[in-house]
Amino acid sequence: MTWTISETYEADKISQNGNKFLIANGFMGYRGTLEEFGKEQFCAVNLLGIYDQVGAQWREPINAPNPFAIQLFAESQSLSVLDTVPIEHQQQLDFRYGIHKRHTVCALADGNQIDYQIERFMSMDDVHSLNAQIKISVLKETKIVLKVGIDGDVWDINGPHLENFQMEDEGLYSALHVQTHEQHCPMSVGQQIALSHHYQSKKVVSEQQIVNELAVTILPDQPLVVDVYTAIVHGRESYQTAACVKQSVVASAFKGYEKTLHAHQNKWDELWKNADVEVEGDPEAQRAIRYSIYHLLSLGPRHAQNLSIPARGLSGQTYKGAVFWDTEMFLFPFFLRTEPAVAKALLNYRVETLPGALKKAAMYGYEGAFYAWESQEGGYDATSDYNVTDVFTDRPMRTYFKDKQIHINGAIVHAIWSYIQGKGDDSFLLSGAGEVILACAEFYVSYSFFKPQKNRYELLDVIGPDEYHERVNNNLYTNFMAKQTVEIGLKVIQYYEKNAPKKLAAYFSINDKEHTKTLWQDFAKRLYIPQMNEATQVIEQFDGYFDLEDVAVDTVASRLLHPREYWGGAYGVAADTQVIKQADVVLLLALFSQTFPQSTLEQNWQYYEKRTEHGSSLSACMYAILASKIGKADWAYPYFVKSATIDISGESKQFAGNIYIGGTHPAASGGAWMTIVEGFAGVTIEEEKISLDPHLPSHWQSLKFKIMHQQICYQIDIGKDYWSCKSVETL
Amino acid sequence: MTWTISETYEADKISQNGNKFLIANGFMGYRGTLEEFGKEQFCAVNLLGIYDQVGAQWREPINAPNPFAIQLFAESQSLSVLDTVPIEHQQQLDFRYGIHKRHTVCALADGNQIDYQIERFMSMDDVHSLNAQIKISVLKETKIVLKVGIDGDVWDINGPHLENFQMEDEGLYSALHVQTHEQHCPMSVGQQIALSHHYQSKKVVSEQQIVNELAVTILPDQPLVVDVYTAIVHGRESYQTAACVKQSVVASAFKGYEKTLHAHQNKWDELWKNADVEVEGDPEAQRAIRYSIYHLLSLGPRHAQNLSIPARGLSGQTYKGAVFWDTEMFLFPFFLRTEPAVAKALLNYRVETLPGALKKAAMYGYEGAFYAWESQEGGYDATSDYNVTDVFTDRPMRTYFKDKQIHINGAIVHAIWSYIQGKGDDSFLLSGAGEVILACAEFYVSYSFFKPQKNRYELLDVIGPDEYHERVNNNLYTNFMAKQTVEIGLKVIQYYEKNAPKKLAAYFSINDKEHTKTLWQDFAKRLYIPQMNEATQVIEQFDGYFDLEDVAVDTVASRLLHPREYWGGAYGVAADTQVIKQADVVLLLALFSQTFPQSTLEQNWQYYEKRTEHGSSLSACMYAILASKIGKADWAYPYFVKSATIDISGESKQFAGNIYIGGTHPAASGGAWMTIVEGFAGVTIEEEKISLDPHLPSHWQSLKFKIMHQQICYQIDIGKDYWSCKSVETL
Repeated sequence: MTWTISETYEADKISQNGNKFLIANGFMGYRGTLEEFGKEQFCAVNLLGIYDQVGAQWREPINAPNPFAIQLFAESQSLSVLDTVPIEHQQQLDFRYGIHKRHTVCALADGNQIDYQIERFMSMDDVHSLNAQIKISVLKETKIVLKVGIDGDVWDINGPHLENFQMEDEGLYSALHVQTHEQHCPMSVGQQIALSHHYQSKKVVSEQQIVNELAVTILPDQPLVVDVYTAIVHGRESYQTAACVKQSVVASAFKGYEKTLHAHQNKWDELWKNADVEVEGDPEAQRAIRYSIYHLLSLGPRHAQNLSIPARGLSGQTYKGAVFWDTEMFLFPFFLRTEPAVAKALLNYRVETLPGALKKAAMYGYEGAFYAWESQEGGYDATSDYNVTDVFTDRPMRTYFKDKQIHINGAIVHAIWSYIQGKGDDSFLLSGAGEVILACAEFYVSYSFFKPQKNRYELLDVIGPDEYHERVNNNLYTNFMAKQTVEIGLKVIQYYEKNAPKKLAAYFSINDKEHTKTLWQDFAKRLYIPQMNEATQVIEQFDGYFDLEDVAVDTVASRLLHPREYWGGAYGVAADTQVIKQADVVLLLALFSQTFPQSTLEQNWQYYEKRTEHGSSLSACMYAILASKIGKADWAYPYFVKSATIDISGESKQFAGNIYIGGTHPAASGGAWMTIVEGFAGVTIEEEKISLDPHLPSHWQSLKFKIMHQQICYQIDIGKDYWSCKSVETL
Repeated sequence: MTWTISETYEADKISQNGNKFLIANGFMGYRGTLEEFGKEQFCAVNLLGIYDQVGAQWREPINAPNPFAIQLFAESQSLSVLDTVPIEHQQQLDFRYGIHKRHTVCALADGNQIDYQIERFMSMDDVHSLNAQIKISVLKETKIVLKVGIDGDVWDINGPHLENFQMEDEGLYSALHVQTHEQHCPMSVGQQIALSHHYQSKKVVSEQQIVNELAVTILPDQPLVVDVYTAIVHGRESYQTAACVKQSVVASAFKGYEKTLHAHQNKWDELWKNADVEVEGDPEAQRAIRYSIYHLLSLGPRHAQNLSIPARGLSGQTYKGAVFWDTEMFLFPFFLRTEPAVAKALLNYRVETLPGALKKAAMYGYEGAFYAWESQEGGYDATSDYNVTDVFTDRPMRTYFKDKQIHINGAIVHAIWSYIQGKGDDSFLLSGAGEVILACAEFYVSYSFFKPQKNRYELLDVIGPDEYHERVNNNLYTNFMAKQTVEIGLKVIQYYEKNAPKKLAAYFSINDKEHTKTLWQDFAKRLYIPQMNEATQVIEQFDGYFDLEDVAVDTVASRLLHPREYWGGAYGVAADTQVIKQADVVLLLALFSQTFPQSTLEQNWQYYEKRTEHGSSLSACMYAILASKIGKADWAYPYFVKSATIDISGESKQFAGNIYIGGTHPAASGGAWMTIVEGFAGVTIEEEKISLDPHLPSHWQSLKFKIMHQQICYQIDIGKDYWSCKSVETL
């Protein structure tokens, strides 16, 4: 199998390829744009966990100045694909090592041909470092001009975020120092150029750019090699950003391009060792799952103990660079089983943002913690009350993601509990996770109402995973997760009683504790969990769902008056129908398949599958997982492919209403991995027992991967008529 | 003061004048259209309490065939205002007696002039009877042709409702017999013509019309007089409709036009005796309040024991001819104090439609009765789930009037309780009203949720009187009315325990009763009633209202992108602001002013007044009443005028979204009367005590009216420096 994808140049694929050819290292991501591209072509160096707001616009992550703003000219003719039609051109991503390459050949009028290649990588060895190498060869002696600069005129959706531009100019070392608008957070981008040939140089400095114009004469047998060493550091790392970037750049230049590349590749080799999945008999699936894992590995915030991964990864500012439930439910399982340190960092982010969640709950008049739907630093909820724009009136539409999508708490507690069980170590409860669980449980109890006539608690006015139905009552998924959260909360109280009575006392006064325990026990016992219809075995997604118009997805689609019109909200085409955006009941059943009879799993899969639009990239994988779990690998396979290839194909929704939502889909990548492990391999883990129940797609010969559990690494091998699970290593 | 209004002809006022010049007698209403008008000019004879649905269109009341389809020709020239420009024309309504008159003079080319007058009335003496008289005089000998017919080609909004047309033709007696589409309810319209002159006649019968063409030669000194006696009977009255109309028509013709008119006028004199309000010092207000009372008296369903009054009276099919809470809250007080028999009929309608309300509650999964928001026969709720059309997409918008406007129950129980207290007789509790109260109370308890943390019940997801804010929690008005309903329910249980144990046993099994009592007592005690803000004394309309954007009504109006755009719903311009459609908190305070301090009344009036759009005709009167009660007659006066003149001015909203909502506004008329009595005169009645606290507008010299309480009629006289209340008569 090749570990590469490639494309020629097509103007209308610029945005899509920006995602497809993304390279990232957990600290930052560089979109898969060509070196001559600027903000108009959505070039961006997207940074993790650093945000900025301008005026009343949406708060979003920062894009750094582009350290690789490179333009080439041969005898004054631009070699940019934007200016000329090359006779050959290929853009390539090596996704084993996260190396972006381009190879372009341009013809000049005199028969001369200029062949140039540029490769770049974001170092996994030094996450602040990005290096590139340019190679240029010619047929005839040619005067080449390279403009190699740092471009601070960045693409922003809701910017501009950068200000106070200051230039540092020391010959072939340049640096750009800026501050963010809102918090005046400093950021520096440094760049050192090294050329194999004699050159003449000129510095061109404008308001937001610093450029070295390098004139070189190249002979046919003497290709030019230019190394560009760069680094980016911002104030979340160090306030000495100027010194830090210089140090990083100088270190890289001292080692040279090849050594920095090798150090980077070694890190990738280490990562693949635990994370790789081998599929025999299906080269396309093999490529897609590795491409998915590449994206997941690219995103691990290994440089920090307490950062998490945004819903669109590091591909840009869409979805405000915010952390959603996607992380806990769709990305976390991968890291838990391949790289628990990253899994811990993701959860630590939630521990550290508990104050924000407490504040949000209080703002809405609830007790405990209400985690942000779109979480930025400190747990600030970036969700707008108006998250969608009406395409007919261009007005913002009141949406309830922020105030009603309370299942976020359940996802966090679910992940924490998985971590504690997966790690076999409950000490995390003593370093912050316990408080998160208690506060999440407290919230659910305080959100609920009691119905005396029915002797039950209910959770009213919520949005479940299916966002097309807003403000519903008793969403199965939400109620189930809330019940689990409170049950885990009761376990934490018990654990604290034994192991940390002081913590408990700090959390509850004595009277409150007993009262709380009683209330929580009552809640856990009496919270209404919608039950399946006895005749059909189908479970109603929320109160009244079955009474909605039962109509095909295509019919609903045919009612659209505008291609970008929002399907949900109060009056969207799906709102009064049973058509749902994404797996909801099916998500729950996929997660908790052991607690339901097989026939119930199957009946619900069949019922909801027909009614799901899959308007979210979180949907397909859950249909794949549940189908596998009921032994229907053929039902699962197309959904697996959809989930695993979403970014490789580039076919995904680009707009919700008039809001651009393009970017990569890490949750779909994580879901593809989950389908392999939990679905096709049928891995289930209970306490210390790992079980397999494989259902491979019929054309797969074998499947191999590793998973970690309680600090032991297991090698799983599955073939047509065998399977095995062996411990191979102890961490 | 004159008891008339008049207008000349203006084509663009046809629809408006149809309402303004309406005549009605409680059984039916004849729109104020000219005799030559047909369906295109919104001519309609609207019938009370008989409905029809065609296909999936809205169910609406029937318009009968027009018994006065009259066209005049002089020497073959049409004398219709639609065909010629008359040299004189006046349309007039005598609202003392409900007589519609028109007077038209047309010039012919030869210098001849044709002067014709037509008057018509809907008899208060025989409610099936409508008679008209035509008088024609000429300057020169003229051959006049009169086409006098019955026109079954009626105006329908969601028709056609009439079918199986059959004609009866006996010379100058004609009749049209039809059936309704849905229930095949028979209806007959009979017409007898009597002429003062010799004539030649020809019968012209088409599919839906039967017309006598009468040719008469008139000399200058011999004006022609044509009497047209007609009657309408439908199957709710008798299934022998053909015989009944003939009997009525023949009886009228036998008496002659004058006698039938006098009998009609005598009935009106009787009605005015108790109902009139005399204002000295303000002729316009005098005229407006009498015009308002005229409309109220026109609507009393005296022919039946169990019918109620639709929101648009008998002016047409708008609002589906349905009975709303308007009746109990805005019309009922007038009838209770002037004509208790009608008040009883209105309540009996609710008693008889209890089965529909029980069914509706069950349909939504609640206990007890949930009265129809738009009630048709049998309590059928005609409210559509999609009551408004989006002007931008032309799509129906999901509205929640039907499922969330639960305050309707409270209005009904409030009216019943007022009736029992006003009548001084609780036997009504034994003839159906008791069951209504219990079922309404039961509903509220079953709709509520208990909040353990706050030790209170809440009413969630409702719409209060202010319909611009849908699906709110703890609407003050709704919660207050619900509490009162359950408190009254507990009194009914007590009353039944003493006076009707069998009824009680039939309603509750023994265990249930004790359990219900305990639950209701708990509910009445712990139902959350929003309290005033201590600093401002303002009471929040519903949870979170104060957090909405606080912006001027004009600013909100300026955000409209389309003149007919709906302000409410999920995304309407008012939805996320504090701008409200109509009195809501102020309505409650106006009704229960004694239970709040004066300063609270005043602070709330001032707060909400600024924020009210008055998009409902139910709004102005409540601001008028509350202002009067706090002694601010000058604040009250403009709102009183607005309420009293809404139909006389014709200035009111004609559309909600794309739905036509034109017609008369009986609730505003009732509200004007309430302002006089409860506001300006400050009448309050507690048990057997009537108190006055007059605050007349400063330019009013005196105010006189009668009210009934516990079967005694009181004369109230108020002047600048005196007032009195004397019993004048015992019924």
